[in-house]
Formats: sequence, C-alpha cells, structure tokens
Amino acid sequence: MQKVLRVAVVGTGRMGKIHIYNAATSLKVKLMGVYDIPERKEEASRLVAQTGSQLYENYDSQVLANNELDAVVIASPTHTHKKLTLDALESGKSVLCEKPLGNDLAEIQICHQKAREKGLVLLIDWNRRLDPSFMKLVSEVRKGFVGQLQIIRVSGRDHPVPPLQFLRNSNSCIFRDMIVHDVDLVRWIMGSEPVSVYATATCCLPDLLGSGIYDTATAMMEFKNGVVAMLDSTRNASYGYDQRLEVFGDKGMLSVENLSSNGVQWYNETGIRKDPYVYSFPERYQISFRNVLEHFADVVMQKQVPMCGEEDDVGIYKIVSAMSLSASLKRRVFLDEIDDNWEAKTQMSH
Amino acid sequence: MQKVLRVAVVGTGRMGKIHIYNAATSLKVKLMGVYDIPERKEEASRLVAQTGSQLYENYDSQVLANNELDAVVIASPTHTHKKLTLDALESGKSVLCEKPLGNDLAEIQICHQKAREKGLVLLIDWNRRLDPSFMKLVSEVRKGFVGQLQIIRVSGRDHPVPPLQFLRNSNSCIFRDMIVHDVDLVRWIMGSEPVSVYATATCCLPDLLGSGIYDTATAMMEFKNGVVAMLDSTRNASYGYDQRLEVFGDKGMLSVENLSSNGVQWYNETGIRKDPYVYSFPERYQISFRNVLEHFADVVMQKQVPMCGEEDDVGIYKIVSAMSLSASLKRRVFLDEIDDNWEAKTQMSH
Amino acid sequence: MQKVLRVAVVGTGRMGKIHIYNAATSLKVKLMGVYDIPERKEEASRLVAQTGSQLYENYDSQVLANNELDAVVIASPTHTHKKLTLDALESGKSVLCEKPLGNDLAEIQICHQKAREKGLVLLIDWNRRLDPSFMKLVSEVRKGFVGQLQIIRVSGRDHPVPPLQFLRNSNSCIFRDMIVHDVDLVRWIMGSEPVSVYATATCCLPDLLGSGIYDTATAMMEFKNGVVAMLDSTRNASYGYDQRLEVFGDKGMLSVENLSSNGVQWYNETGIRKDPYVYSFPERYQISFRNVLEHFADVVMQKQVPMCGEEDDVGIYKIVSAMSLSASLKRRVFLDEIDDNWEAKTQMSH
Amino acid sequence: MQKVLRVAVVGTGRMGKIHIYNAATSLKVKLMGVYDIPERKEEASRLVAQTGSQLYENYDSQVLANNELDAVVIASPTHTHKKLTLDALESGKSVLCEKPLGNDLAEIQICHQKAREKGLVLLIDWNRRLDPSFMKLVSEVRKGFVGQLQIIRVSGRDHPVPPLQFLRNSNSCIFRDMIVHDVDLVRWIMGSEPVSVYATATCCLPDLLGSGIYDTATAMMEFKNGVVAMLDSTRNASYGYDQRLEVFGDKGMLSVENLSSNGVQWYNETGIRKDPYVYSFPERYQISFRNVLEHFADVVMQKQVPMCGEEDDVGIYKIVSAMSLSASLKRRVFLDEIDDNWEAKTQMSH
Repeated sequence: MQKVLRVAVVGTGRMGKIHIYNAATSLKVKLMGVYDIPERKEEASRLVAQTGSQLYENYDSQVLANNELDAVVIASPTHTHKKLTLDALESGKSVLCEKPLGNDLAEIQICHQKAREKGLVLLIDWNRRLDPSFMKLVSEVRKGFVGQLQIIRVSGRDHPVPPLQFLRNSNSCIFRDMIVHDVDLVRWIMGSEPVSVYATATCCLPDLLGSGIYDTATAMMEFKNGVVAMLDSTRNASYGYDQRLEVFGDKGMLSVENLSSNGVQWYNETGIRKDPYVYSFPERYQISFRNVLEHFADVVMQKQVPMCGEEDDVGIYKIVSAMSLSASLKRRVFLDEIDDNWEAKTQMSH
Repeated sequence: MQKVLRVAVVGTGRMGKIHIYNAATSLKVKLMGVYDIPERKEEASRLVAQTGSQLYENYDSQVLANNELDAVVIASPTHTHKKLTLDALESGKSVLCEKPLGNDLAEIQICHQKAREKGLVLLIDWNRRLDPSFMKLVSEVRKGFVGQLQIIRVSGRDHPVPPLQFLRNSNSCIFRDMIVHDVDLVRWIMGSEPVSVYATATCCLPDLLGSGIYDTATAMMEFKNGVVAMLDSTRNASYGYDQRLEVFGDKGMLSVENLSSNGVQWYNETGIRKDPYVYSFPERYQISFRNVLEHFADVVMQKQVPMCGEEDDVGIYKIVSAMSLSASLKRRVFLDEIDDNWEAKTQMSH
Repeated sequence: MQKVLRVAVVGTGRMGKIHIYNAATSLKVKLMGVYDIPERKEEASRLVAQTGSQLYENYDSQVLANNELDAVVIASPTHTHKKLTLDALESGKSVLCEKPLGNDLAEIQICHQKAREKGLVLLIDWNRRLDPSFMKLVSEVRKGFVGQLQIIRVSGRDHPVPPLQFLRNSNSCIFRDMIVHDVDLVRWIMGSEPVSVYATATCCLPDLLGSGIYDTATAMMEFKNGVVAMLDSTRNASYGYDQRLEVFGDKGMLSVENLSSNGVQWYNETGIRKDPYVYSFPERYQISFRNVLEHFADVVMQKQVPMCGEEDDVGIYKIVSAMSLSASLKRRVFLDEIDDNWEAKTQMSH
Repeated sequence: MQKVLRVAVVGTGRMGKIHIYNAATSLKVKLMGVYDIPERKEEASRLVAQTGSQLYENYDSQVLANNELDAVVIASPTHTHKKLTLDALESGKSVLCEKPLGNDLAEIQICHQKAREKGLVLLIDWNRRLDPSFMKLVSEVRKGFVGQLQIIRVSGRDHPVPPLQFLRNSNSCIFRDMIVHDVDLVRWIMGSEPVSVYATATCCLPDLLGSGIYDTATAMMEFKNGVVAMLDSTRNASYGYDQRLEVFGDKGMLSVENLSSNGVQWYNETGIRKDPYVYSFPERYQISFRNVLEHFADVVMQKQVPMCGEEDDVGIYKIVSAMSLSASLKRRVFLDEIDDNWEAKTQMSH
C-alpha cells in the first residue's frame, strides 16, 4: 500500500482552495492536480503554479482515466456532487465530497451503494467531527463529565455578512446550508435520532423583507429521553465567526467557546477589548479541514475507520428537512414525516 | 413627606430575610417590625433581635392597624399574596409583593384595581429590572448598539440543587417559578408581546421520572417582527447559579455573563480554574433586591415612577400560562388562546 | 458587653465617607456622630443628616469626653493621625486609624505603647487583608496549592488619574501612599521580612518632569529563601482601578484579577469589549472596608483576634522606607539600613 | 531568481525537527536534506524518510559542497553555531541560525562580518518578532495606543519541567537560555538600549539547592526616559507554557495573554475550568517558527528586509550579560560595563 494518497481536487472556490493548499502541504497526501470548469481556468492555473501540481482541463480523460490518482476531492457547486462522485467511484477512485452528496434521500443512497459495490471509500466532509475542541468536548461527554444530558445549545452565525443583494438572489436555505453542521454536532453528541423538531425561519433585516430569504433561524430537536437541543443561526454576526456549543447535564456542563483571532488585549478608558473572533470558517476550522483530508487518506489506506457514514448523511438530511418543513408549516414536525415526497408538503423556499 | 419609608416585612423565609436585612440597613427605609405565622415565631424573634425591630404576632392589630407603618413588604407563601395585599391596601398601606400577585388573571387585576382606588403603590418584585448588568444591557439595546434585534437567548438554571424528594412532593411549575423571570427580561427588552410560544417540559433525571415534576424546560417566544427568544431552564446547575442573557442583532450582540464568586484564579497541571459562580439567587441579585426596596420607597415618596405595573404582571402571566399549555399540548400556542378558562385545556401539572 | 460598637468617625473626606456610610448601615456598629474641622462643617452636616447621627464640632468635649462612645474611627489628614489616636486612647476609646499611624518609627511605637497601657484596641486599616479574594488566595497559599513559592507579582495602579497640577503640588510619595498596601500584601503572604529591596521611581509623563513627583515606581523585595516579589505602581491607569496579585510556586499559581464593573459584554465589528474595571478604590474595596469596620467591632468586643498589629505597622514602614531610599540612592538597600536616622541618607522627596 | 529556497537543516533535536517539518510543508521552501552527527543517524533517517528528503552524513561534501542548496538552517548544539555558520557562509550559502551565534561579542561580530563580505543573508531566529500576537501588540504600541510608555512586564516560564537531575548537570544559564527572548521583546518594543539592569537569580526548589543552577530569575531594565521593564522567569510552570507580555502607558495598556490549548470549558461543582495552556514552546510558537523560515526565504530572495540584524544580536548579548553580572554581583549594572572582559568580573555560573 502506498505511503501517500495521490489526489486531484475538483473545484477552486473557497473550499476547493482549502483542500488544494492542505493537499499541497501535507506529508500524508500528494496533490497531483486541480480540475475546474473552463470559466475558472485562470484561477486554477494560478493555484497549480503555486502548488507545483498539474492543471486538469478534462475531467474524463485527465481525472477519471488517470491511473496515477488514488482519490478525488470534490468541492464543486452542490448540484454537481452526485454525478462527479458516481463517476469518480466508477473509475475506481475513492471520494471525499463536500456536503451534501445529493438533493434527496435517493441520491445520497445511490452514491453510497456505488461505493460499497466498488469497495471504495466515500466520505462526506463533516469536518466539525475532527475539530480538536469539539472532539475533546464529545470525548468528555462520553466519559460522563456532564452526567445525564438535559440541554444542548448551539449557535452558528455566519461572518462576514454576505452582500444582502447576493442573498436575495441566492436560493440558499439557512437550514440546509448552515444549521446542517450544527445538526451534525447534536446527532454526534446524542448518538441517536430526535423524535421531532420545531423550527422557525424569519426575516428581521429590512433589506431582505419579501425576498423569501431568511436571515434568522431557530430550531429545537426533541429526543425520547427528554433531552432538548436548541439551535440558532443567523447570516450576519458582526463580531466574527460565531460557533458555540454547550452541553448541560446533571453533573456538569461543557462548552466550546469562540476562537480569538489573536492573544492581544487592549485596555483604555473605553474598556477592555479583544479583536473580533476569527474571520470566518476557513480560520475557525483550519485544523479540522486539514484533519479531514489526512483522515480520508488514513481511511483509504486502511489505517483508520471512517468518522461517519451513510447513516449520518441520511440522518442529517432527514432532520434538516424536518426543520425546513416545520418552519414552513409553523408546527412541530415528527421525523417520520420525512419521506421521499416530503417536499410536496411545503411551498416554503428559504 | 417623610424622609424614610417605615415598613413591616411579612414572611421570614429566604426572600423575607433578604427584605428584612435590606430594610434594616438602608438609609431610605426603616424596618419597624416583622410578621410571620406562629410556627415561625422563633425565627422571627431571632431576626427582630438582630435588626432592632419589633415582632408582630397579629397581622390585623399590629400591622394593618399600625399607624406608624407606611408600607408592607410581602414575602409569604404564594397562596397568601392576594389576601395579604388586599388587606394591606385596604388599611392604607402601600405594598411591595413577591411574584405572583395571584393565581389567575382576575386575582392580579383585583389587586391592582384596589391599589388604584386607594391611591396607593402596589409593586411586584420583578427585581431583574434593577440589576445593574441587565439595566446596562437594556439601556444599550435602547441606544441601538445591537441594531435590529434578531435573537434573544436566556438561560436560567437553579443552584443549589433542591433535594429531589422535595421537588417530587412540591407542586412547583418550572415555568411559573423559574422561567417567569426570564420572560420578564424578554418582554422588557422587546417592549411588546409575543404572538406565540412553543415550549417543552421534560424529565431527564431518573429520580424524578413519573413524578409529574419536570427538571428541564425550554421555550421559544416568537414576535411579530421576526425576533425569536429562546429560553431554557433547569433545576440543577452544578456549577453555581446560572443566569445568562444574550441579545443579538444585525449591528452587534450584548450579553450578561454569570457572576464570579471571587476574583481568584487557580493554575496548575489540571488547568486554569475559577470557583463556581455565585451560590444562588440571593448572591446573584443582592444589589437588585436592595435596589427594588429603595425604588419602592422612592415610588411611594413620589420620587420615581414605578419600574413596572399591572400590564407587566398580566403580560407575564399570560406568556407563562401559554408556555405551560404548549408544553402540555405539545404544540405551538398563540397568546390569544390564554383567557380565564385556559387551564381547562390542559391536564398537565408541572 | 454591648452588642453594637458605638463609634464616632473623624474626617469627612473619601475614606471618612466610606466609614460613615458603613457605620450607619451596619448591624454590628452604631454611628453616633461625625467630627471634622470647621472648614468642612457643611459636608459634615450633610452626612449626619443623611445618616441620622450627630454633628460633633469639638473633639475634646464631644468626642473625647463623650461617655456614649466606645471607639473612634480616624480618617483625617495623615499628619493628624498620631495626636488624634493618642488622645482617643487616653480618653479610653479604642481606635481604628487609616495608615500611617505616624511619620516615623517612634510615632508608630508610641501609639501602640499607649494602647497596651490602656488595654484598648488600636487597629490600622490594612483593609486588603479582609478582601474576600485576597483572603481566599492567602488561604490557598497556606494550604500549599502553589507549593514552594518562587515569585510574587503585584500591580497597583491608580484610577482615576488625579489632576497632574494637583500631583505637582502634593508631597505624595508613591511608595508611602500607594505601594504601601502592596507591601502589606507581600509581607502577609510571605509571613517574613525581606532581606533587601531594589526600587525605582521615575517620571515618564511630560507634565510631571522636573516636579519631583514620580508617576511610575517599581520595586523588588528579596527574601532569604530565594523568593522575589516584583511590584509596580503608577498613578494613572486609564482602564479603571488596577490591582492585581500573582503568587507562583513549583506546584501552581494563584492570581487575583481585577474586578469588572458589570457583567455585560459588548460584541461588534470592533471586537469583544467589557467596561473598564471598577472606578476606584472605594468600589474595589467596598466589601473589605465594611469588613474592617465590623472586624474592628468584633476585636473590641473580644470576639476576634486582630488581623494585624504593631509588628506589621513597623515592618511595612521599614520596607517602604527602604524602597524610598533605594529609589533615591539608585542601589539595592538592606532592611537593616533602616533606622531612626535613615532619612538623612537621602535628599529624594517623592 | 528561484521561486523556492532550497535548504538543508542541520540538527534533529527539538528545534531541528520544527525546521525540518516546516521546510517540508512550505510552499516557499524546499527541504533538500538533513544533516546530523553519526550518533543521531537513526533519528535523521526517520525524518528524511517521513519528509521525502535526503540524508546528509558529511557536512563538508554533502552540505557545503552541494550546489543544489541555497541555504543552511542551523539548529545544532550551541557551541557549534559559530563554526557551522562561518563554514556555510564561506561556501556561499545563506544561514538561518538558532540563538546564540556565538559565546562572546567577538564571535557574533565575526559571523556578521563574514556574511557582509560574502553578500549573504545571516539571520538569527528571534522568532517572537514574527508571532502574530506580539506583532499586533508592537504595531499598536507604534501607533500610539498606550501613549507614553511607563512599564513593561514580561513573564517567561518554562513547561514542561525538565528533570531536575538534568538541570543539575546542565550548564544552562537562565538569562542566556530563557530571559534572552524576553529581552529581545523589550528591546524591540522600546527601540533603544537600557541604561542599566538589576537582576536576581535564586534557587527556591530544594532539589536544586547547592547545584549552582537557578530556578527563578527576575530582572529590571531601566531606560533613559524613565520606562522600566520587569521580567521574570522560572523553569517550572505547572500550568503549561507561560509567556505573557504587558505594555503600560498613560493612554492605555496592551497585553498578550497565554494561548489556550483548546476552546473547551468545563463547569461543575469544583468550578469553571480550562485545560492548561499550550504544552510548550513548539505549540506556542508554531506559527512564528513557520513565519521565520518563510521570512528567511523572502529575505534571501530579496522580497523582504530582515526583521533583525547584527545590532540586535549584539544588543541582546550585552543586556543578558549585564543581567548575569548583576545577579552575580548582587548590584545594579550599567550596560557600558559589558565589554570583552566582563566575564572576569564574576564567578557566578548559572
């Protein structure tokens, strides 16, 4: 078995760049090349020059047919994930893909079915699971520090604020794009599925009124054993990237606080100040993104078992869908209401 | 008009003691005497000896008929509040009463009607409104620091843990006894009533299972302008009294953190540690309890306008009742569902 | 023995007001009256009216000859301490006096000699010893938390900044007026006297250059067992009253951090902010000043042993004098260089 | 000019490994090979295998005579620095060397003289200067945030505790090995040389008594403009690597606090806790070590001016020597007492 994993990265957007840089500077992974669509050739050329890797201009002939590649890392637009993944697996390459794998349950399941058939690794980048602080928190919960769980609180608020005009024209769903990672955290901590959810999606900012885009969302996840998780999300934290987690039980509480962008404190007659929290998700999850890529390499090289699998991708999909439905119907939704046709029940488009 | 307010305190439990001590050491108030039922004569005797005040053994002849008293501070068991208040007002004395004034809307309204008729002051001890940190936060919200509000988070978790056997036998309602103060905070900040609430009350601790007593509660308050408040409460914070508040908007966020019990930090190979937060509500609200008593004196002496009034007592009652109903029916409840007969709709007893 | 201590307070400046208010609102002490010089009659009149006590206009006839007084609290200008103390003791009253008792060793010793002769209590207000945080720190040091001590760091920086013109014209000595309390802390922690000190007093602020007034001072205290204490002091902390203490040893470290003026945190694009620390020493030591007065009452009523005594007043005097000499001579000074004639060795006036 | 700097690393100890890993994962530097003495061949072999680089077993033929190398990074034992540096420069290679360049002023100056003659870069790894937090602090000082400087405080305390037996047998000097970096920080902030220093080196830990090894050191640096810097250092911080800096002036204060090892907080009845600070210097200075290597590459490739030079190496040497002399003579030492023969003045060996 080879000592380093030879990968191609597909996509040169924000996540693509992160994977490209990590692959180029890892001792476990070797970045062979980068693929993107012709419109982004300039950016892709710049990146391969910087990293000493190759520019792939044809996915079929240069990536799929390339025998020097062990795996493909997919960070292209969401709607392309399923096809790129299936093709890569078909060509014999393991896949690390950004979420979501597909647009519905069937698409998610088809991809995993293909990976099983080919005996290859298919991993979704649920990167929070390899963040050192979250790993430490979950490990302490498992060891019993908080005792019997009662309440979980998660805040996930984005920074920097995207241009509101951009948001108006996007079809971004605040549950599917943002709360999805917090749902992953809660499921991971609980190790079980919630019975029901209650969620709200509202528009507080004047510039977004009537746009069908929601700037503020909250959700509760209710579990059989009485535990309730409370989640909130906004698109516009002014004070830096805000991602906090708190797990409360009868013996204690554990929390993960936000990351400081530096260790300086300012003191004067206006008070005691620190800089805003780290700028955005690439800074907050710098270590976990690197960890995911190296974990993927270890899984392909059979040195580790995967941190997550199909049941996670499916479970998260169902919960996020139930939240979306709840916010649309403005009522509590049970998880077993989510089936292949659930979207017909709502007209809401976040 | 007199320079100090001459008061009797009724009740020698935890809140009674706080009022007795504050009245005895205030330059605005003079503690004339203390009344409690015969069963608590020993405690009452100890307190009057310590404070140099008088023991009242008969409410009618020594308190109501006492012309040297300007006001009565009521801190007796909940079910006695209405009658003691009405009698004190009838006898021409202003009243500062612990929450709640009564068991239903009618009782609350009767008391305020009586105070208006007699031209006297009737103030409920919504003491959070005179806590320096909360006052500062609300003042900054009013000045626009957070911009357009989007999310409010409140945690109110009790410490020390009451004996679970005691809780099993109490008829304490977690919404009415604990979350009620957090509801006051949210209404105060918002300056308007929510449209609807969604709440859960669950039992996570094995010792309370089947007791009808809930150890864990959460609630959402949804406002017309899209703002959502998320509240949680438990009866058993292990790390000290936990009362936190966070107000998030498009321009910034304000929070009130827990109070340290001292300024010491411990550092060794197990980490960096501070003592648990202040022990319980008397420590956390030491200043606000004193402030409320002196504010009451100022209101009676017409130096200040009252910090709250009948519309607050009624509004808070309705919201807490809606939460209780929501937790019982396990569905969203609109505020306009709360009328004089709302309790018939639920069998749930928290 | 009486249940409350009946006191007169002498002086209506900053410290006088603190003692007056504390005496008037304590259950252990009864404020009988207030004395000050004729020039301050208006202020004294206002204070006695507010506290329901008496105005004393003649120290001899109304304080010394007053049989209803058990004790005198002296908070007048420094140069009057010795005489007021001796007279009060002579008249049979115990004394709580602000530091310093006298201007040289002889004066300090004469006062204590008089108290012993009369069998009365003479206590200097080394109030840091009854601050809850410092008490907790010292208790933990005694229990061995830090192991073998190595380094002590103390910062004591004043706020608000006094008018520089006022400082220019004062004859305030930064060691005698400010670092003296930090020296008390270090001696208390160590339980022994230093062998030598090294100190600097410098002038960094342009407005004070050439005034003979020093805005910045540092000192080291070296102990026989190798422990070194490092102290620094300035007259102008811009961010609130700054009093920090840190004790380091081979098993751990203990620190006392500054006190927040409230529990609010502000978050926006400029960062995460808290208000400046508490405004000044009355806020920082609110509890310890009250504790000292009640401790004094307990000592007089023989319920407690005094927290400090003559050896502390003398020890502190010697160290502060050694620091002053070191800063003047710009060399290390041994404690045994401080005798009755040490001041002849220096021309420096801080 | 080439796009990446081709380097050999000399030394496979703690600092050598850091440079090897950074060189192997940098996009600006290419690790060509690693050299160490025969006794460490096993470790060196492991490292070159892991990084895909070459094992150099002969310094002369494989490093000095190697035309594929642009530069040498020297992280070997201190006494070898001068010769390895001179030889590398002579062979036409730029040098990044760990401190100190040499054992006395002459050695430091000879090396820089050689670099100038050959037109090559010689950089000492004063890595604090590229730590993001320190850079931010210094930048804010330069912009005037603290106003007129008055006091600088630096603590530098080592973790983990080295085996005391190891320390007993070392000839480590606490000024030369530890405080030297804090001296660099102070000189950098001040931009000028101190007039004098006063320092202590003591032994508090019983196991080190009589060993001639000092576990505790303090120092003051006094500047012409009245600013005083206070430094302390110990070999045994139990709570993680402790490196703090505080700069105080009349307009404000700036501090750099210690780095948390993770973002988790633990809460229970024993209090509120965080893990110890980061383990040791490789964790604390992870970013600055990487920055120094890439800065060195940029300087060689003429993209940046060097962050420090001969005057810094000489200035730091003189101050540390003055401290050592002061601790030995137990008196204040002026900087101009440090010349080529200063060591004859002291018998002390730390």
